[in-house]
Amino acid sequence: MAGNRGVAYIGPGKVEVQDIPYPKLELQDGPGVNPANVGRKTEHGVILKVVTSNICGSDQHMVRGRTTAPENLVLGHEITGEVIECGRDVEFIKEGDLVSVPFNIACGRCRNCKEGKTGICLNVNPARPGAAYGYVDMGGWVGGQADYVMVPYADWNLLRFPDRDQAMEKIRDLTMLSDIFPTGFHGCVTAGVKPGSTVYIAGAGPVGIAAAVGAQLLGAAVVIVADLVESRLAQARSIGCETVDVSRGDPKDQIEQILGVPEVDCAVDAVGFEARGHGEGSATEAPATVLNSLMEVTAAGGAIGIPGLYVTGDPGGIDEAAKIGALSLSLGTGWAKSLSFTTGQCPVMRYNRGLMMAILHDRVQIAKAVNATVVPLDKAPEGYADFDSGAAKKYVLDPHGMVA
Amino acid sequence: MAGNRGVAYIGPGKVEVQDIPYPKLELQDGPGVNPANVGRKTEHGVILKVVTSNICGSDQHMVRGRTTAPENLVLGHEITGEVIECGRDVEFIKEGDLVSVPFNIACGRCRNCKEGKTGICLNVNPARPGAAYGYVDMGGWVGGQADYVMVPYADWNLLRFPDRDQAMEKIRDLTMLSDIFPTGFHGCVTAGVKPGSTVYIAGAGPVGIAAAVGAQLLGAAVVIVADLVESRLAQARSIGCETVDVSRGDPKDQIEQILGVPEVDCAVDAVGFEARGHGEGSATEAPATVLNSLMEVTAAGGAIGIPGLYVTGDPGGIDEAAKIGALSLSLGTGWAKSLSFTTGQCPVMRYNRGLMMAILHDRVQIAKAVNATVVPLDKAPEGYADFDSGAAKKYVLDPHGMVA
Amino acid sequence: MAGNRGVAYIGPGKVEVQDIPYPKLELQDGPGVNPANVGRKTEHGVILKVVTSNICGSDQHMVRGRTTAPENLVLGHEITGEVIECGRDVEFIKEGDLVSVPFNIACGRCRNCKEGKTGICLNVNPARPGAAYGYVDMGGWVGGQADYVMVPYADWNLLRFPDRDQAMEKIRDLTMLSDIFPTGFHGCVTAGVKPGSTVYIAGAGPVGIAAAVGAQLLGAAVVIVADLVESRLAQARSIGCETVDVSRGDPKDQIEQILGVPEVDCAVDAVGFEARGHGEGSATEAPATVLNSLMEVTAAGGAIGIPGLYVTGDPGGIDEAAKIGALSLSLGTGWAKSLSFTTGQCPVMRYNRGLMMAILHDRVQIAKAVNATVVPLDKAPEGYADFDSGAAKKYVLDPHGMVA
Amino acid sequence: MAGNRGVAYIGPGKVEVQDIPYPKLELQDGPGVNPANVGRKTEHGVILKVVTSNICGSDQHMVRGRTTAPENLVLGHEITGEVIECGRDVEFIKEGDLVSVPFNIACGRCRNCKEGKTGICLNVNPARPGAAYGYVDMGGWVGGQADYVMVPYADWNLLRFPDRDQAMEKIRDLTMLSDIFPTGFHGCVTAGVKPGSTVYIAGAGPVGIAAAVGAQLLGAAVVIVADLVESRLAQARSIGCETVDVSRGDPKDQIEQILGVPEVDCAVDAVGFEARGHGEGSATEAPATVLNSLMEVTAAGGAIGIPGLYVTGDPGGIDEAAKIGALSLSLGTGWAKSLSFTTGQCPVMRYNRGLMMAILHDRVQIAKAVNATVVPLDKAPEGYADFDSGAAKKYVLDPHGMVA
Repeated sequence: MAGNRGVAYIGPGKVEVQDIPYPKLELQDGPGVNPANVGRKTEHGVILKVVTSNICGSDQHMVRGRTTAPENLVLGHEITGEVIECGRDVEFIKEGDLVSVPFNIACGRCRNCKEGKTGICLNVNPARPGAAYGYVDMGGWVGGQADYVMVPYADWNLLRFPDRDQAMEKIRDLTMLSDIFPTGFHGCVTAGVKPGSTVYIAGAGPVGIAAAVGAQLLGAAVVIVADLVESRLAQARSIGCETVDVSRGDPKDQIEQILGVPEVDCAVDAVGFEARGHGEGSATEAPATVLNSLMEVTAAGGAIGIPGLYVTGDPGGIDEAAKIGALSLSLGTGWAKSLSFTTGQCPVMRYNRGLMMAILHDRVQIAKAVNATVVPLDKAPEGYADFDSGAAKKYVLDPHGMVA
Repeated sequence: MAGNRGVAYIGPGKVEVQDIPYPKLELQDGPGVNPANVGRKTEHGVILKVVTSNICGSDQHMVRGRTTAPENLVLGHEITGEVIECGRDVEFIKEGDLVSVPFNIACGRCRNCKEGKTGICLNVNPARPGAAYGYVDMGGWVGGQADYVMVPYADWNLLRFPDRDQAMEKIRDLTMLSDIFPTGFHGCVTAGVKPGSTVYIAGAGPVGIAAAVGAQLLGAAVVIVADLVESRLAQARSIGCETVDVSRGDPKDQIEQILGVPEVDCAVDAVGFEARGHGEGSATEAPATVLNSLMEVTAAGGAIGIPGLYVTGDPGGIDEAAKIGALSLSLGTGWAKSLSFTTGQCPVMRYNRGLMMAILHDRVQIAKAVNATVVPLDKAPEGYADFDSGAAKKYVLDPHGMVA
Repeated sequence: MAGNRGVAYIGPGKVEVQDIPYPKLELQDGPGVNPANVGRKTEHGVILKVVTSNICGSDQHMVRGRTTAPENLVLGHEITGEVIECGRDVEFIKEGDLVSVPFNIACGRCRNCKEGKTGICLNVNPARPGAAYGYVDMGGWVGGQADYVMVPYADWNLLRFPDRDQAMEKIRDLTMLSDIFPTGFHGCVTAGVKPGSTVYIAGAGPVGIAAAVGAQLLGAAVVIVADLVESRLAQARSIGCETVDVSRGDPKDQIEQILGVPEVDCAVDAVGFEARGHGEGSATEAPATVLNSLMEVTAAGGAIGIPGLYVTGDPGGIDEAAKIGALSLSLGTGWAKSLSFTTGQCPVMRYNRGLMMAILHDRVQIAKAVNATVVPLDKAPEGYADFDSGAAKKYVLDPHGMVA
Repeated sequence: MAGNRGVAYIGPGKVEVQDIPYPKLELQDGPGVNPANVGRKTEHGVILKVVTSNICGSDQHMVRGRTTAPENLVLGHEITGEVIECGRDVEFIKEGDLVSVPFNIACGRCRNCKEGKTGICLNVNPARPGAAYGYVDMGGWVGGQADYVMVPYADWNLLRFPDRDQAMEKIRDLTMLSDIFPTGFHGCVTAGVKPGSTVYIAGAGPVGIAAAVGAQLLGAAVVIVADLVESRLAQARSIGCETVDVSRGDPKDQIEQILGVPEVDCAVDAVGFEARGHGEGSATEAPATVLNSLMEVTAAGGAIGIPGLYVTGDPGGIDEAAKIGALSLSLGTGWAKSLSFTTGQCPVMRYNRGLMMAILHDRVQIAKAVNATVVPLDKAPEGYADFDSGAAKKYVLDPHGMVA
């Protein structure tokens, strides 16, 4: 049996590459594994040789110490891999298949899965609906920033690429199907983006840029991306977006300069609870800022998609309200405009097949848009540090040197 | 020309029936009329002899002094009437027609109207999208708790009853089409109610009860209505609903007793910003209580319809946050469950025709459900006072004695 | 191991109860089994003790000799049962569970299943998308008009009743969840039925009546059911429907007498390809009659749901066109009215849970509506004959005497 | 008062430019005017100076003598113009506005208009729902292949371009908003096209090409356009489409060569009743060919959008069935795949604003795609002849020389 390595969370600001157990078709005990999940058989699962596994902004919440993630938790929920072993109950996925893994773990057998709501599967996390790989309070499924990883309910969860060679040629793009491309796209879909829409996206990190690409794919007329970091805004402009620098004053004024009107049809929150304030002195966290701002800039009748993460508790919150996840929202502003709001994890399976088709047929260049940067697994700590500093890059780990 | 009388707001806690001008096909200056609307021609409008005009919970916000409504504002946005004069640009509505008036005033000519978003018409209120009769900051259109009222854009706005005699027989039901029946129904539609749903409705006032009837019409399996006032809960039970008394502890526990599980599929906020707390000592206002509670009781993947009014400013708010309309919301609770939220005025036109059909063909008994209580126009002050005290009644004013 | 009995098709007009093999967790060879399915392992499946199994109108197509069904095909796709054995890959369904079986067999792992299109699963029928129990060209899965039956992909396919005793009390209603209630309901949903709609349903057999109940549950204002057989029309009237006797002249005229206008909002074809003509001499088959008539009676902007079966070949068709499934449709009539049309098997899983809730909470009485008539398995031949003669009954087989 | 000229239908194969009356704000008697519409006042209308008016494939049905169009009918329903006179009841449209006119005439006051179904307005055509300019049996509204034209219900019907100069720069594109761009787009929307879809479009005329552009704007992965005329197919390839030459054998085989599978997700019929056969000898009309072929090539679960015109009667039909608009459709093929079908005129207003935004912000180049060819009004007869011969061009008439 092969050995295995994984990127583990050590403590605030620190990750390291460790030797970890080779995965089995059974959920083993370990850091962060829900006791009720220990020993769970997964003959419906497969072992993947990880081809790529990306560092995600939501990993950063853990690494910054903003969660209760335990020491030695193996990270990584953005996984693309090659099937090297199938459980005896896997029927349609085969060894050798190259596959994308939705970050949501889903059973394919509960009411929510049957309704396509795979982000809140009822059977994979004893603590609450919804699970993910390598994430605190998400069931204890081992992360995939590793050489090898186990994926349960493989026939349901996996998206098989139709042709292996074609897929390897576009692997930098396809690796974005496990999370950020569908996540950004879901933000746009729930914000009601359609041909001709004007769209405002808060946040020019990888999810924000992915949302911008999603908005373009949905036919938006104008896509405006907002952030505080100039290099990220430049990245947005490089793919044809307009930009708003929220450190330079009221977004409404900047929007008006772009569109002639101070409001957009659709808005996406690609920031979440670690938001910082707008305007001068915007370095301070202000968790409700983004949502209150989006209610201001969205025209009456519009919708706001909220893929950005909001939490029920934040030990590192700036005040008592933030620590219990309470936001001071000007809901009346939204109510007067008849706005609607959609929150939650993207159900990746709803979108990944269509987005794969768009990639394979050259309709989108998501890797270039998010500045995909491939590094060996060993370099994960540097990738985390660089990404945390605001680099306009999306780090893609390449454990077996199959990409670079 | 006939005289005219109307119910006017005098000051906190006080309304009176006054002589007011007979309406013209032009918007005259008066209390609360937006200056930009003064003198506006309305040849597209009609003069109605008011058959019924209901007192609404949202009128109470004004009468309690919770808004900036000016003295002598003529109230009344729930209007049913007979057409007695048509402007020259009215083509399909005819004198003698018996009609229901959506409380939203809409032009039928702007982008939002074309998209069916008549609650946020762009052309009827110089201050913001959306207008209504007899309501503060809603454009200055004179209210219809009166003998006569002018309705603009009559061909677009009015719903004609197909048969006058049949309509007069069901007038107690049909009068609910101008606001509360569609409003409660919209709450259910946006909460995703469908055949077999379990539904929780916060608030057993007329809108809450109308929502309950709407949920039943949409095929809900179980409808649970929550309130603090026992007589209102009894009213809900009389139409086949289950009830939760929020003064008696955690709604989740009470829901579990009813359903066997502590959560519902769909939730409706029929309370709004004047919410009071749950449990012991629940007499104190707690504007975010209802929404936070609904996030608790709604199952993952559910939706929350919010027809209850939230405001951008509340001079009578209990604290500084409330005064500027800021709510302390535990959005992370909703985010973890992938909930969605829909706010705003109901676009009445989207629903009133179908609900009229359901009434005319005896599929619903909305008047009985909300305990419609017909009184002469003169008795409006008593009606306001009684309704404000929590009476489980919906007051219907009958200016010309056509109903009773 | 127990013995087993099943209702087998012997030849045109003839069925008999036979001894058949006890089911295994593997698809055995037999009459009508697709060769590529022979020997297929089904460790994801369960063995059910059949509690009820209904005779369906689509079984009649086979029994009348209108298909290529082979001799000794065991019939029955409307199955409710008790789980008595679980394959090793069954995780959530347990022995002792009382369950409803959707007539569509689906894998829960292909693209179509992931999109909720379980009527056209890609993995259960080597010949084409979609499979069913006991049906010609539907993959060869053994029918459930039997003592015992095997159900594959059990975690995905089965709907578990929450409480066994409660379920047995309502078993006459719940047995309709396997096919006709969702099928009729799907016809209404795809016809756009909503609160206040006027609905015309062609066919007062069990699916037509189920569609009528579905329309009522969806809030329709008026439901009109059309047929040639007076006893069936009387059954429709007994549940509050209006009726049209198509042998008595133009449906439009009869609709106008009911509604005051000659058209409805929504129409459902609950007849299919064995339709007979309207008006005098209507005993002759006229396969396009129903659809052409529905285009006539549906108002511009309406929709037509087509759960009634249309085939690609009909050996017993009245002429050459009918034999190859070609219908002479006046599509221009529909085009001028901007009608839409939805065809195909109902994806039962999309609806059965909600309809179960409506049954368990007494919102519908589907058994009474379709005149559920419980008989022992031995009496199946008499049931087939009686149903074929137009009896206004829905036959429910009760192999183990658990119901009667 | 100025003079006026218009393109009139003279007889099969013949049109000419005539002097015609200058329009009034009242519908005058004339060729093809419904008697009940004669003398109808249109103070809600405007007079337009026609900037562009395009020749449409559906005009050809009349000009080929395939309808009952009367002699001297003035043609033209694809109109873009400048407002030069407003009726007294026009409130928001102003003189000098540059506007696009949806080809559907709609009142903005009936049930269908309120539901956004402007293609089947109930108040503009005494004969049936729906009207158009310059078209047989469509109410008698004078066509706009003219110097001047009257547009009723102007506030409702007209789409104002936000900036006149910007609009004139893109006028070749914007002129497609009156019909073909929304019509092709509607075909795609109703066929369910979304990001990643594979799409098959029957017909490479202007509507087919517009559908292809619409599919691209909606994010389709692969767009396949089919026709018999090589120059039209070349035009499709020039905008990045794949093509199928239906004269060269079975479309399924050609699709399989392109996609690797013989079926697509979505299909659009941009041909209609004057379809010709596939394969060898395909010059003969075969009115059901396109629809039967689309049922073959659309995958199970797909949808077919049918913007192509089907008629209730065709005096020039190839046989008795065709003459009464009866098509021999293999509906069973579609039923087995659970296909859905949407027919009818595109409700232009639903899409034109969004598509205008996409044009103004350079997201689409529709003029180039359809090979917009601007000619003076005098050259209309040559344009009709050339277009009828299969030229891969979209003729745009420029009566006042404002474009060229």
